[in-house]
Amino acid sequence: MPLIREYGLIPGRMPPGPRNTLADVPGVAVGHCTVRTPGHNTGVTVILPRADIYFKKCTAAAHVINGYGKTAGLVQVEELGQLETPIALTNTLNVGLVSDALVQYTADACAAHGTELRSVNPVVGECNDSTLNRIAERVVGRAEVYRAIAAAGPDFAQGCVGAGTGMICHGLKGGIGSASRRLTADGRTFTVGVLALCNHGCLEELNILGRRPGAAIAARQQAAAKTDDVGSCILVLGTDLPLSSRQLGRVVRRCGVGLARVGSYWGHGSGDIAIGFTTAHALCADAAEVETLPHLREDRLEPAFLAAAEAAEEAVLNALAAAEPTTGYDGTVCHALCEYRDLL
Amino acid sequence: MPLIREYGLIPGRMPPGPRNTLADVPGVAVGHCTVRTPGHNTGVTVILPRADIYFKKCTAAAHVINGYGKTAGLVQVEELGQLETPIALTNTLNVGLVSDALVQYTADACAAHGTELRSVNPVVGECNDSTLNRIAERVVGRAEVYRAIAAAGPDFAQGCVGAGTGMICHGLKGGIGSASRRLTADGRTFTVGVLALCNHGCLEELNILGRRPGAAIAARQQAAAKTDDVGSCILVLGTDLPLSSRQLGRVVRRCGVGLARVGSYWGHGSGDIAIGFTTAHALCADAAEVETLPHLREDRLEPAFLAAAEAAEEAVLNALAAAEPTTGYDGTVCHALCEYRDLL
Amino acid sequence: MPLIREYGLIPGRMPPGPRNTLADVPGVAVGHCTVRTPGHNTGVTVILPRADIYFKKCTAAAHVINGYGKTAGLVQVEELGQLETPIALTNTLNVGLVSDALVQYTADACAAHGTELRSVNPVVGECNDSTLNRIAERVVGRAEVYRAIAAAGPDFAQGCVGAGTGMICHGLKGGIGSASRRLTADGRTFTVGVLALCNHGCLEELNILGRRPGAAIAARQQAAAKTDDVGSCILVLGTDLPLSSRQLGRVVRRCGVGLARVGSYWGHGSGDIAIGFTTAHALCADAAEVETLPHLREDRLEPAFLAAAEAAEEAVLNALAAAEPTTGYDGTVCHALCEYRDLL
Amino acid sequence: MPLIREYGLIPGRMPPGPRNTLADVPGVAVGHCTVRTPGHNTGVTVILPRADIYFKKCTAAAHVINGYGKTAGLVQVEELGQLETPIALTNTLNVGLVSDALVQYTADACAAHGTELRSVNPVVGECNDSTLNRIAERVVGRAEVYRAIAAAGPDFAQGCVGAGTGMICHGLKGGIGSASRRLTADGRTFTVGVLALCNHGCLEELNILGRRPGAAIAARQQAAAKTDDVGSCILVLGTDLPLSSRQLGRVVRRCGVGLARVGSYWGHGSGDIAIGFTTAHALCADAAEVETLPHLREDRLEPAFLAAAEAAEEAVLNALAAAEPTTGYDGTVCHALCEYRDLL
Repeated sequence: MPLIREYGLIPGRMPPGPRNTLADVPGVAVGHCTVRTPGHNTGVTVILPRADIYFKKCTAAAHVINGYGKTAGLVQVEELGQLETPIALTNTLNVGLVSDALVQYTADACAAHGTELRSVNPVVGECNDSTLNRIAERVVGRAEVYRAIAAAGPDFAQGCVGAGTGMICHGLKGGIGSASRRLTADGRTFTVGVLALCNHGCLEELNILGRRPGAAIAARQQAAAKTDDVGSCILVLGTDLPLSSRQLGRVVRRCGVGLARVGSYWGHGSGDIAIGFTTAHALCADAAEVETLPHLREDRLEPAFLAAAEAAEEAVLNALAAAEPTTGYDGTVCHALCEYRDLL
Repeated sequence: MPLIREYGLIPGRMPPGPRNTLADVPGVAVGHCTVRTPGHNTGVTVILPRADIYFKKCTAAAHVINGYGKTAGLVQVEELGQLETPIALTNTLNVGLVSDALVQYTADACAAHGTELRSVNPVVGECNDSTLNRIAERVVGRAEVYRAIAAAGPDFAQGCVGAGTGMICHGLKGGIGSASRRLTADGRTFTVGVLALCNHGCLEELNILGRRPGAAIAARQQAAAKTDDVGSCILVLGTDLPLSSRQLGRVVRRCGVGLARVGSYWGHGSGDIAIGFTTAHALCADAAEVETLPHLREDRLEPAFLAAAEAAEEAVLNALAAAEPTTGYDGTVCHALCEYRDLL
Repeated sequence: MPLIREYGLIPGRMPPGPRNTLADVPGVAVGHCTVRTPGHNTGVTVILPRADIYFKKCTAAAHVINGYGKTAGLVQVEELGQLETPIALTNTLNVGLVSDALVQYTADACAAHGTELRSVNPVVGECNDSTLNRIAERVVGRAEVYRAIAAAGPDFAQGCVGAGTGMICHGLKGGIGSASRRLTADGRTFTVGVLALCNHGCLEELNILGRRPGAAIAARQQAAAKTDDVGSCILVLGTDLPLSSRQLGRVVRRCGVGLARVGSYWGHGSGDIAIGFTTAHALCADAAEVETLPHLREDRLEPAFLAAAEAAEEAVLNALAAAEPTTGYDGTVCHALCEYRDLL
Repeated sequence: MPLIREYGLIPGRMPPGPRNTLADVPGVAVGHCTVRTPGHNTGVTVILPRADIYFKKCTAAAHVINGYGKTAGLVQVEELGQLETPIALTNTLNVGLVSDALVQYTADACAAHGTELRSVNPVVGECNDSTLNRIAERVVGRAEVYRAIAAAGPDFAQGCVGAGTGMICHGLKGGIGSASRRLTADGRTFTVGVLALCNHGCLEELNILGRRPGAAIAARQQAAAKTDDVGSCILVLGTDLPLSSRQLGRVVRRCGVGLARVGSYWGHGSGDIAIGFTTAHALCADAAEVETLPHLREDRLEPAFLAAAEAAEEAVLNALAAAEPTTGYDGTVCHALCEYRDLL
């Protein structure tokens, strides 16, 4: 599972965190459940901003880059600026069942606290893996979501795992990628991390730090490069920077820059959606009526914008770099960037 | 099931259609499945703009009045201005399972056409019936959705049926209400209809065509009127007016006026969301590259705005008027407006 | 200048502040400059959240109820959540010159601080007074804006003054109205105030606390009531509640409820726009990199929502109540509500 | 005035129109008025979609990439999807006077038609040229706007002209740039053109088709590259494609991709705003109540998205390529890309 830096390529100019993943944000855990059968290449990936998210909600925000997508939960995130469940990523047609699994997960958490769940807003992102997966069979359910949550931790695989198992990105095998950036504010070090589920872009536009290998790859494949930017990309951004939901929304929006740097123009059929949270706040039911929450001065946001762009760019590149060739249910082989390292 | 006009009260000045419901829009069908058990007062209501909606999509729009809600499907509706499934309404925690049921319904429709479903955007609205329903048990599933669809037709019940079974509105029993308005454009008659799932408002603010019975009702109940506008309201607006999605969005926004007329101020905890479609367009996969779709001249929208406000107002009043007293799983009795006709 | 309470009518159930105007918010000043000539009934009204607003910016938000309007400055207010000039209201075609006057006013303020102005975002709202004013002549310029600012204080006139001089509301003479509401949070008293420039609505829909005098007024005028909701309404909401810009946006949105209560359905031709600020924050260039700003807990916003709705409703009613009959440049007489008190 | 292709660099893969400017869209004219004095480097640029725009309005849309800007007129463009004046670009503090000039221009047009102007929504974009221009003096007024309109035609200069005179982009001299792309739909050829007023970006991130000359340029300048993405970029997109305002909004959004390709991450201080129009529709006051306007099928938008991204990218590169070194009012010299061709 080589990442893009192991290809000798270093995206951007800001320093990454120690893991160079979303899990560099303290407390964040990521887990996968991969479903591979003769008929299926799919799965689910969960991001837990903190363990008890329903009781200590995070300040959150979202930005719809291109809304041809079925992401659940954004209405409430945008109204209240809060996240109260793990974020789950899966295939397009499994959003309903995975949402329901997050409801059950929260009901369990309430039961453990001796309360009864009455309302919760599950957040679920999706991309369409129907080229490699019998998507209409919806094989990701509660068991898979629980397995992904159980597996969650600060170290996690990238590439063809979890929700990324069946994804295709820039005409090559896509999947899960992640990266992080560190920045300083008020004398302290903060992290901005991104995890991307990459299923977007066309080969012809692929841009790896200025390298444009699309034509050469297509030539070797003896196939014309696809020229539509189809599929989707879900980007989950986490940080420990103290930000209001409006500020976080501004940061999250810059994930679109990262996509563009790798050659996406946010195609028509692409549900490109960025969801962000900060762990700097823990919004509790028993908070004071007037809270004093820290937040960054507006004109100090600039490095966080660049961090979001760079981490998103590197997350997409890592998804490509870490992916492996994958054979679909009908025998279709989706090739991977690692097969074309000589063309970079 | 007396409606508000049977109370001798006539909201607004525009004429209603023959049924005075959303189903006055030609081709629109509505169906309920009600779930009543010792532990449950809940259900599902479906609105079918036309029979083969996945293959002949409707122009659509949505407006979030207050976004403390979990409605599914709005991201894509707003991006593409299209609706491609029936709209289902249910309780808050059942959105996932009901979304999944709409996926299956569409997969079935594709199978009947000899194709395989690869992507679909189910639209599901919700209100929280947890006062009267053991909501965490999520008893509305695929069977209930299919039953509601099978039951759908131009004539349908209002009040405590389908998704409305366990709802509370302005401190009284709420539920499903509907109304319509007729208007003329270009020498033809068009209809604007609204169906509302009413679970919002407080008794103190209740305003029935200028009557304010809240204090008197509270006095008789020997209870203080609730003073928070909690709960939610989902408003589905349908029309046969030729409108672009932007224009339809302008019309749909006026549903918020209807809520305000009956005394809502779109409370904090209320997921007040309006979703609209027009049957004037049938967006097909085999359309011409350049289509010429009819739409109303912008400055002719005015009557449609008033129609939306009036139909939404009357739909909420009908939900109240048609509701019956209901006993919850823990013995709580929710009283209904029909018990207080003498106070109007 | 009788206000609506002097008509014996009391809108809403929350208590007003001592002046029952926007200036009940501590530090807020309002000033008018009225232009009345044979050809003109127009002017400018300024709202100063605090004296040195450019150096101590307010947290701010806006909500476009219906965007058929030319309000300047909203793009930046929405991005940064800040207000840095007084808010000026004037006629539609004078927005450019009044914006320029606010630039000069800010340049003067910078000069007084020994700095040079390089950038400022003037906020100017407008309604169309062309029925009573030769609007194309644009007689409101820098001198008028400076005069309004010089006249600003906590006590100010309502009705046909300043920007309200030539406005028409619900078919009657409109203009400037204001009101306030008090509420308690965290053991302290806070104020929500609204000032409305009222030029919207049709006579037929006029609703004064449930009274519907439109038909009777039209009968006495021997004219059919206008049936279109034309014109516009600009609502300026101020508060000292500690709110984030997102929260303030939620409060400001409820001004639309106030409009609806008086019978508006936010007509097609109406630029109905609400702009809000809180004086609880003073955003300075020399703030700490990480600020800790107070804000209200999300679920304590409810009373502020009702306060916004009630203050907006009463502000519109005050604009109607305080207005006097006015003769336009072409002899058109616009009658006023005070002439029809017997019909209420 | 060499453009980027004269540097031997060809951005993108789609073919440009014959002029490779916004004026390849039939009927579109562009004019400048440049103000250069010892104290000033500023001006105004106007884009006329058609001659009689007030009487034959264009379908229009806007997208705010980053809203730290003062652009006038967007509220109404977003509500109605219409443009009814030329678009004018100028410096930040001149927006008010330039808006007023467009009002006068429209009043003149009405007078010529024998009518009186009562309402108009002038659209004015801006960037901040205060490094090279005494911006607080606001030297762009009605005379300059009229001169720019009189000069408008299909052939126009790029670089340091009109509104671009004092702009700085990626740490180098910026200004006006333009480009176009051709595409085929329904058997016909259409054009997407972009004109950009470029005042954004930092030298360090400058990306010219994969070349990153920032460090080398900074070294030669013996100055550290600025590392903030300050300033702004206004992008005007025109097309003759038949698009609804919603569709046009989707196309216009892709201008942000063009900015990102050249190295912008839409910095905090940058008012990055895209405004689009299509000449395919002429919206007239005497249109039929139900119009049938052509528009492209949704899934045929893809090439227009790429065209917008490519034309925006090349427009920014042309602004840089065509600019000349400029000395500001205080002797500051802003160098230009043409001085560093050897470093590309």
